[in-house]
Amino acid sequence: MAGNIFGNLFRVSTFGESHGIALGGIIDGCPAGIELNMKEIQYELNRRRPGQSSIVTQRNEPDEVNFLSGIFNNKTTGTPIGFVVYNKNHKSHDYHHLKEVYRPSHSDFTYEKKYGIRDYRGGGRSSARETICRVVAGAIAKQLIKDIKITSYVSSVGNISINKSYQELDLSRESIEKNSIRCPDPNTAEKMISKIKKIKNRGDTIGGIITCIITNIPIGIGEPIFEKLHAELGKAMLSINAVKGFEYGSGFDGTKLTGSQHNDLFQEDESTKTNLSGGIQGGISNGMDIYFKIAFKPIATIMKKQKTIDKHGNFILIEGKGRHDPCVLPRAIPIVESMTALVLADYWMYTKLSKYSSIKKN
Amino acid sequence: MAGNIFGNLFRVSTFGESHGIALGGIIDGCPAGIELNMKEIQYELNRRRPGQSSIVTQRNEPDEVNFLSGIFNNKTTGTPIGFVVYNKNHKSHDYHHLKEVYRPSHSDFTYEKKYGIRDYRGGGRSSARETICRVVAGAIAKQLIKDIKITSYVSSVGNISINKSYQELDLSRESIEKNSIRCPDPNTAEKMISKIKKIKNRGDTIGGIITCIITNIPIGIGEPIFEKLHAELGKAMLSINAVKGFEYGSGFDGTKLTGSQHNDLFQEDESTKTNLSGGIQGGISNGMDIYFKIAFKPIATIMKKQKTIDKHGNFILIEGKGRHDPCVLPRAIPIVESMTALVLADYWMYTKLSKYSSIKKN
Amino acid sequence: MAGNIFGNLFRVSTFGESHGIALGGIIDGCPAGIELNMKEIQYELNRRRPGQSSIVTQRNEPDEVNFLSGIFNNKTTGTPIGFVVYNKNHKSHDYHHLKEVYRPSHSDFTYEKKYGIRDYRGGGRSSARETICRVVAGAIAKQLIKDIKITSYVSSVGNISINKSYQELDLSRESIEKNSIRCPDPNTAEKMISKIKKIKNRGDTIGGIITCIITNIPIGIGEPIFEKLHAELGKAMLSINAVKGFEYGSGFDGTKLTGSQHNDLFQEDESTKTNLSGGIQGGISNGMDIYFKIAFKPIATIMKKQKTIDKHGNFILIEGKGRHDPCVLPRAIPIVESMTALVLADYWMYTKLSKYSSIKKN
Amino acid sequence: MAGNIFGNLFRVSTFGESHGIALGGIIDGCPAGIELNMKEIQYELNRRRPGQSSIVTQRNEPDEVNFLSGIFNNKTTGTPIGFVVYNKNHKSHDYHHLKEVYRPSHSDFTYEKKYGIRDYRGGGRSSARETICRVVAGAIAKQLIKDIKITSYVSSVGNISINKSYQELDLSRESIEKNSIRCPDPNTAEKMISKIKKIKNRGDTIGGIITCIITNIPIGIGEPIFEKLHAELGKAMLSINAVKGFEYGSGFDGTKLTGSQHNDLFQEDESTKTNLSGGIQGGISNGMDIYFKIAFKPIATIMKKQKTIDKHGNFILIEGKGRHDPCVLPRAIPIVESMTALVLADYWMYTKLSKYSSIKKN
Repeated sequence: MAGNIFGNLFRVSTFGESHGIALGGIIDGCPAGIELNMKEIQYELNRRRPGQSSIVTQRNEPDEVNFLSGIFNNKTTGTPIGFVVYNKNHKSHDYHHLKEVYRPSHSDFTYEKKYGIRDYRGGGRSSARETICRVVAGAIAKQLIKDIKITSYVSSVGNISINKSYQELDLSRESIEKNSIRCPDPNTAEKMISKIKKIKNRGDTIGGIITCIITNIPIGIGEPIFEKLHAELGKAMLSINAVKGFEYGSGFDGTKLTGSQHNDLFQEDESTKTNLSGGIQGGISNGMDIYFKIAFKPIATIMKKQKTIDKHGNFILIEGKGRHDPCVLPRAIPIVESMTALVLADYWMYTKLSKYSSIKKN
Repeated sequence: MAGNIFGNLFRVSTFGESHGIALGGIIDGCPAGIELNMKEIQYELNRRRPGQSSIVTQRNEPDEVNFLSGIFNNKTTGTPIGFVVYNKNHKSHDYHHLKEVYRPSHSDFTYEKKYGIRDYRGGGRSSARETICRVVAGAIAKQLIKDIKITSYVSSVGNISINKSYQELDLSRESIEKNSIRCPDPNTAEKMISKIKKIKNRGDTIGGIITCIITNIPIGIGEPIFEKLHAELGKAMLSINAVKGFEYGSGFDGTKLTGSQHNDLFQEDESTKTNLSGGIQGGISNGMDIYFKIAFKPIATIMKKQKTIDKHGNFILIEGKGRHDPCVLPRAIPIVESMTALVLADYWMYTKLSKYSSIKKN
Repeated sequence: MAGNIFGNLFRVSTFGESHGIALGGIIDGCPAGIELNMKEIQYELNRRRPGQSSIVTQRNEPDEVNFLSGIFNNKTTGTPIGFVVYNKNHKSHDYHHLKEVYRPSHSDFTYEKKYGIRDYRGGGRSSARETICRVVAGAIAKQLIKDIKITSYVSSVGNISINKSYQELDLSRESIEKNSIRCPDPNTAEKMISKIKKIKNRGDTIGGIITCIITNIPIGIGEPIFEKLHAELGKAMLSINAVKGFEYGSGFDGTKLTGSQHNDLFQEDESTKTNLSGGIQGGISNGMDIYFKIAFKPIATIMKKQKTIDKHGNFILIEGKGRHDPCVLPRAIPIVESMTALVLADYWMYTKLSKYSSIKKN
Repeated sequence: MAGNIFGNLFRVSTFGESHGIALGGIIDGCPAGIELNMKEIQYELNRRRPGQSSIVTQRNEPDEVNFLSGIFNNKTTGTPIGFVVYNKNHKSHDYHHLKEVYRPSHSDFTYEKKYGIRDYRGGGRSSARETICRVVAGAIAKQLIKDIKITSYVSSVGNISINKSYQELDLSRESIEKNSIRCPDPNTAEKMISKIKKIKNRGDTIGGIITCIITNIPIGIGEPIFEKLHAELGKAMLSINAVKGFEYGSGFDGTKLTGSQHNDLFQEDESTKTNLSGGIQGGISNGMDIYFKIAFKPIATIMKKQKTIDKHGNFILIEGKGRHDPCVLPRAIPIVESMTALVLADYWMYTKLSKYSSIKKN
């Protein structure tokens, strides 16, 4: 009910349901004077778009963003940036049979109980279509913090994983975008794609893991004690549809180590020899690479018959219709990067405030 | 700099450094008329206290909380609850040798860089001593949401893990508090304690995992889309010192499953047969148990010589002095539960607002 | 830069410039299940519309609102309500001569200095056109708190004032809407209108005062100590374009009284004999009528030649062009009521949280 | 219930009741590296102290502040600054007779109704004793924005007013502090003091007006559209006990002027010839002096018999006991200045964020 604003200084409000007229948002707090590259914004939307390859949903949505305010002569003006993306292809009739049904592992049931009313046309507000607004805002945030590089890629699909560290991979845009699964290791990518195709043919879906790397980040970003950098990154990632887990640096594996194995020793130049800390100490960036992993469950909508109940407690059989993603991961890449950029943009601004400096009388 | 307030409706502000005069906090937004059980508050503080067993630090702190406002005749009055805990045993002289040193995997370096000034007496604000305020506030939050049951226990230490699901364990307070590691499986507990003792004798430290279970939770708690219940729980856990990862429900393992394996089918009574969702769908509690895991790295302070640098870039050798924890986990149990209670208290209040109802003219 | 969100629980974000493509907003936190009367929303917009009478600007804008989300089958769903109002009639060419000019008592100068860039087409973000979003959101807020009655009217124009207390006036909608100045005292209204016409003919503008009355308000609304009800009402009113002052209850005149004259004595039914307090004690509504006054300065855009400077410090002569309001007050009535409704809606929700009550497990 | 935090970037949380153990607060967001002048902080507290002259309450409280964190070697560290002020002289027994009584024009009634429970010992949270925390925080805020000068003085008591503009007065600290009423016009001051003494002898109280002037303020402070500088100043002032009105610049008198009379014409150096705008245009400071007036009602506690009711609706006679202020104004001066400083400190920090500038990789 009240969770539709993200960030404090670089604040994004969003609205919109999967089958409504439009989705959109407002960015409040974007500094004035940023020259925006509109192509980069559309590029990110295209990476999130349905229909972009054979392993994602074949729905066709142009997903074009219209900016309504806050930009003048291609520059941000410091006033709120309003934007909308119209839903061209909602096909509400596809969903009428779901009016009173609680689909398994969807949020039909919880929305109905929480609000007492529900837009039953598709996922409504809980649909991943909502993330389109995150990508628009994130693409602008990326341009605010352009010196920082955010890269993410698919590191696992089901039980197929890259068995190289991120340092061993070519993480250039070209390398990651070369294949439809967005995995920079070509052999693994091929196996992942073939796995997804098999799963799709069975009408099923599959989960996986995305790895995200932040490089060239200034020291000092993060706001202890409750808003440590990794805590806010974790929250941002966990707010993405289908995410079940987040770890950074040594993560869950690090729990098996001793302190003497885990400690990152400093070098003369203030960098550390190892980086099990994952670039963050005490909730504040230390200038080393930040890296983290995000676990995505398999999508709940499957093209197979499932038994479920309706709101009167009657059992019924349902089966996914239409065109759905067999695996959320390739389209989630720009969402992960967008949320990362939103966190960093917000915190970057706080960082300007941590040390005292006076503002002179003009 | 600005991250010392947690929550929105049940808001906690905290202050205090490990070696300052006192730590404390303010709870703003606690409803009026809650009859407080003061013994339960001290009980939680005692579970967090140093010196409570042979596998935790032997420092001796009474950790008594003084409430200064907001409570009248033992009931909350709706005004802010101020509290302080004085540091009885700070021993600042122990720390003078660390004045210009950056200890490995501590936040000495990042605080120095971010703020340009640092309270070098111990961890200062970044010390886990700060969590004492979380436990005070959390103990009150628990009393606000007393119908909900929050239980946590140590499920792994290093590579020793409980190999039972939480349903197979006796999760009564007695069972968990029976041993000093707070593991409800007696055999595993024994192995964990013996492991920690070995590690401690070597002057080293070890990480581990805490599992937390929320039962008897109402349906409808959580605020999509950015403040989904699990996102806020994740943030709360990741804000605790030494935490490197969070997963809920099926977590990272769930990424290996297919949709047809992962979906939780509804039963006639609106419960689900399985619970891989972990009690949350679309960011909102569905009434099933919520369960999640938190990864703790090994504590960075070890009783072994380590090479590090000072702020001038000179190498020096340091070695932990005094009395430190070999394993943070048993003392982290009340902290995990407190942060969970703070999240739930805050969201519980939002839940009252999601459906329309008028307030009549009195 | 970051001041475009109003409220905490019933939160409104707005965007849009006077000569951009559209203005709009998002309401986050509106409870689910409110049946909306769309005609009432448009009615409020019509009261704010240009061109509605001979004493306001003759610009012609339909000012139709498009709701994009958050409403399903005419009821709020608890998800964010997005809306846009397109600018049909912007005529940007009218404003090109103002590109580098700082108009006197406008915010051209301060925006330029603060942001380093400025949308010079009219007032941009600082134009009162922005208030259209306040009226949309306020009209919904009014429906949330429908038991409370908010009424405002023009009580002074220049030195012409109603010399009756609000209790002596007919404050029905019909009475206030009967004349174009929205003054419920017909004789005074006539004088005001004739005054405004004279002022308009001279190419000048004139200020005035609006009085606002809140009746049938529950006891207990307001959040001490910083967010007292009158403090938030004051902020809301002062945020409206052209407002220079706010007083409630006895106001500035009350400073001349003694305590024994000013104290409101209680009666047996808990009402008070007098109401110099203005319905608020200690920042919390006491159930008596709330009444306050808002001072509006004369509009800065006049149809007379004025000497001013451009951004290079050169003197130039300017003169208002186009169609402007000679007096902001009649069109400000719905804005005052909207901001009042937004404050009350937000605080109404807080009021549900002040006393403890448990939420049962469903 | 949730209104005890002021500010966003420079955030103050406060707690404490008039007859509790202590009052205190936390400043979160104060930049690191400010060298604090502790004497100035105590100086402000002394100006607010009871017992400082014959025209204020003769209660005796040392009002000493204890800082508990956030300051190291006399400098702010960027971590939260916790502080407490103990109540030395609460004399709770004085108040027992008020247990069930609703004093006229106090908030006994509204607190009882809102929270269902009330600390009846004096005003509890609604007592002006609460403002001690505002003065501590404000005194630190003043040191953050030390280039800006904030001066306030008593300009009216009852119907006795200074009939000079602020520019004609000597506003040095010495001049204002020379007399016990803090009025920089000696003749008027004498009349005011003699008026207050008469009022006091009758057991009555009297209201008045404080004028506040901000000079040497940078251009660009204020956050449109809802958080305009004057809106936030208004809210801050209206949150002070006994305040009934706020006006800035031309204020209520400005409503009588025409646009051509009211507009402030620019001069070549970007200053304005006149300053009816009061230093703020479009919610943003324009570098000219900011000036505003605050109306204080007479204090409700009088030393005369008054008829009132108790919580059972029975009439009873009450009479103020103990030592109360006949006029709140001289002691309100540091409170007004503190709240002004808190607003400016918060907004000063936002001002650093309005224009884009990158943070380089360190």
